[in-house]
Amino acid sequence: MTGKPLCSIISAGCAKYGIRSGLSGIDLFNEALDELFENCPSIRTSDVNALYLGQGFESFEHRANIAPGFANNYGFRNIPAVRVESVSSSGGTSLRQGILGILSGLYKIVICAGVEKMTGVDTGTALEIISEASDRPFEQWNGATLSALNALAAREHMRRYGTTEEQLAAVAVKNHENALNNEKAYLRKRISIQDVMSSRKICTPLKLLDCSPLCDRASALLLVSPELAKKYSENPIDIIGSGEASDSDFVYRKELTSFTSTKNALKESLSMSGKSIEDMDLIEVHDAFTINEVIAYEDLSLCERGQGGKLAESGATGIHGEIPVNTSGGLKAKGHPIGSSGIGQAYEIYNQLVGKVEPERRVEGAKVGMTHSMGGAGVDALVHVFASR
Amino acid sequence: MTGKPLCSIISAGCAKYGIRSGLSGIDLFNEALDELFENCPSIRTSDVNALYLGQGFESFEHRANIAPGFANNYGFRNIPAVRVESVSSSGGTSLRQGILGILSGLYKIVICAGVEKMTGVDTGTALEIISEASDRPFEQWNGATLSALNALAAREHMRRYGTTEEQLAAVAVKNHENALNNEKAYLRKRISIQDVMSSRKICTPLKLLDCSPLCDRASALLLVSPELAKKYSENPIDIIGSGEASDSDFVYRKELTSFTSTKNALKESLSMSGKSIEDMDLIEVHDAFTINEVIAYEDLSLCERGQGGKLAESGATGIHGEIPVNTSGGLKAKGHPIGSSGIGQAYEIYNQLVGKVEPERRVEGAKVGMTHSMGGAGVDALVHVFASR
Repeated sequence: MTGKPLCSIISAGCAKYGIRSGLSGIDLFNEALDELFENCPSIRTSDVNALYLGQGFESFEHRANIAPGFANNYGFRNIPAVRVESVSSSGGTSLRQGILGILSGLYKIVICAGVEKMTGVDTGTALEIISEASDRPFEQWNGATLSALNALAAREHMRRYGTTEEQLAAVAVKNHENALNNEKAYLRKRISIQDVMSSRKICTPLKLLDCSPLCDRASALLLVSPELAKKYSENPIDIIGSGEASDSDFVYRKELTSFTSTKNALKESLSMSGKSIEDMDLIEVHDAFTINEVIAYEDLSLCERGQGGKLAESGATGIHGEIPVNTSGGLKAKGHPIGSSGIGQAYEIYNQLVGKVEPERRVEGAKVGMTHSMGGAGVDALVHVFASR
Repeated sequence: MTGKPLCSIISAGCAKYGIRSGLSGIDLFNEALDELFENCPSIRTSDVNALYLGQGFESFEHRANIAPGFANNYGFRNIPAVRVESVSSSGGTSLRQGILGILSGLYKIVICAGVEKMTGVDTGTALEIISEASDRPFEQWNGATLSALNALAAREHMRRYGTTEEQLAAVAVKNHENALNNEKAYLRKRISIQDVMSSRKICTPLKLLDCSPLCDRASALLLVSPELAKKYSENPIDIIGSGEASDSDFVYRKELTSFTSTKNALKESLSMSGKSIEDMDLIEVHDAFTINEVIAYEDLSLCERGQGGKLAESGATGIHGEIPVNTSGGLKAKGHPIGSSGIGQAYEIYNQLVGKVEPERRVEGAKVGMTHSMGGAGVDALVHVFASR
């Protein structure tokens, strides 16, 4: 099916990122859905055949099986409504399942959403919950948190390739710069390499400003089968590639500085799309930690193995660079509401391709974009390719 | 696609139900997969394109995103491996997503599995975790546990239709009788109506023996696209109908004694299969509480509205009755390992249709069967129709 649209996005919605005190997950979901339906008045809730909802952790709101209640409260009557969970990539997984649903022929119109309300608990509880994302006997029990695992990856990358802490910091500086021009982003604050270098140590060599912040958010996409796209939208964006792959938990792997799951997901997605990585006009990558973006450059073939740090400091992935990465501000500066992050990436690519982002961070003339969503430290990855018509 | 196979089951595996001390979820998963591959030596792990894994709660083992690690540990290399969660119906959801995956054309061979390790925590913690299955502001905060919500349904059913506690008890007695002849069942003990009536009150009118037990288990199905079935199996079982529907959380509904989600899922599934409910030779229904089975009789049109209690005591749903229900022992006596239960139902129907169950509980000549899986108190439901060739 090379190059054939798998499905089309005809609308998208996103709640504002940040600490949304007094609001729970369902309120954020409603906020995202309100924007989605406002942007596409020709579709009503009764037209929708199914909802996929990514949520990383049920413990933040002490509530499992959220999808049916959320769906029926919003006004979708009795449709299949399914939670999918792959921690940080739950949003990417939600998108993939929506695509499969449409390809199956059983659904014509699907909402793929993601949500996470993270700030209603104290920090200790939040860290305890997030530790569920790592392997229990060998990671959790040895204190190997996600920060620690990614610090290990960073250290090994520095040792093997001479990557510097300043190069990692360059990722944070760029993404904060982009978030300045994204009115829905959480951390809209210009930072310098020096700010990152002098910020509090989290797990050497990663410092506070190398890490993405917890926050609250929901986001949603409206997917239709390709033949319906023009009926409902003047400017549909096609999804032409979808790749998904898994791997062992981090501690069981020998290779620390490259993620097989990303490489396999990329391969599937590009092969389906008939595009090469050089065809991409912009990419949103998983940057929960700055090292993740550096490794993603390499795994997505934006540069040679080991050259990710140099690419970061070269400016090539900046908004006016050769291949802009994380124009939204990324998870790093826009915020990382676990279950929502993957859909948030697609929200950015969709809005860039339809030309609806703030002018300061718009990639002019962009026609093809990519998202890269990752669960845990390379435990799974999803890569999607989007194209305007 | 009326009557056309959606996909085919060519093997199945199931760990023994019960308190499996010293084993964790991944061990139970491996046990189920070992049986599955032993029963189908022509398929190797490298042939499998994707894994769906239902798990109800991440809190029991303090571990989220389990699917990639489980898959790669077992020997599936880098395949898409996704956890789906809809509490008690997670297994049914896993099956539905596997079917969509095959219908999409992206996958040819898929494992649909379910797992729950519930007995590693103390009872208080277990109840706290399970309460995540109900709505937070209006159910959890008012102490309306799943037992309480189902007791409410039972009370209203008794008030409106004259259903008696003895009729509810008849469901438990029948399912325990069936479990006696299922070597993998957890509660293999004959009980009488009097035993149920005199058992400890949980939430009036439900008593201990009206409730299914927590336990540990994993189960798995091997699905292939219909055209591959005969290549790998002499006796494939086709899935010819799949229905899924959702509803609001219980407390937001007016109707307490009937579940719209079940009725809608039934409608979709039957319509797809080209069968009517009278064509079924046996059915596995969701019986987490005895009242659930009584209501399922009505929602699945095995009897008129309000007549479920009478049907239970008539013996018509016994192993030698007109329409045997829960020949496995049901969740009630086989055990209810949340995320695994829906796949466990399909495991029973598959084995009945290929004639591989213990002779004492075999439904002779069965050719068409159905499963009914439910999440929460009617929050979502899945109905699948299976047929031998």
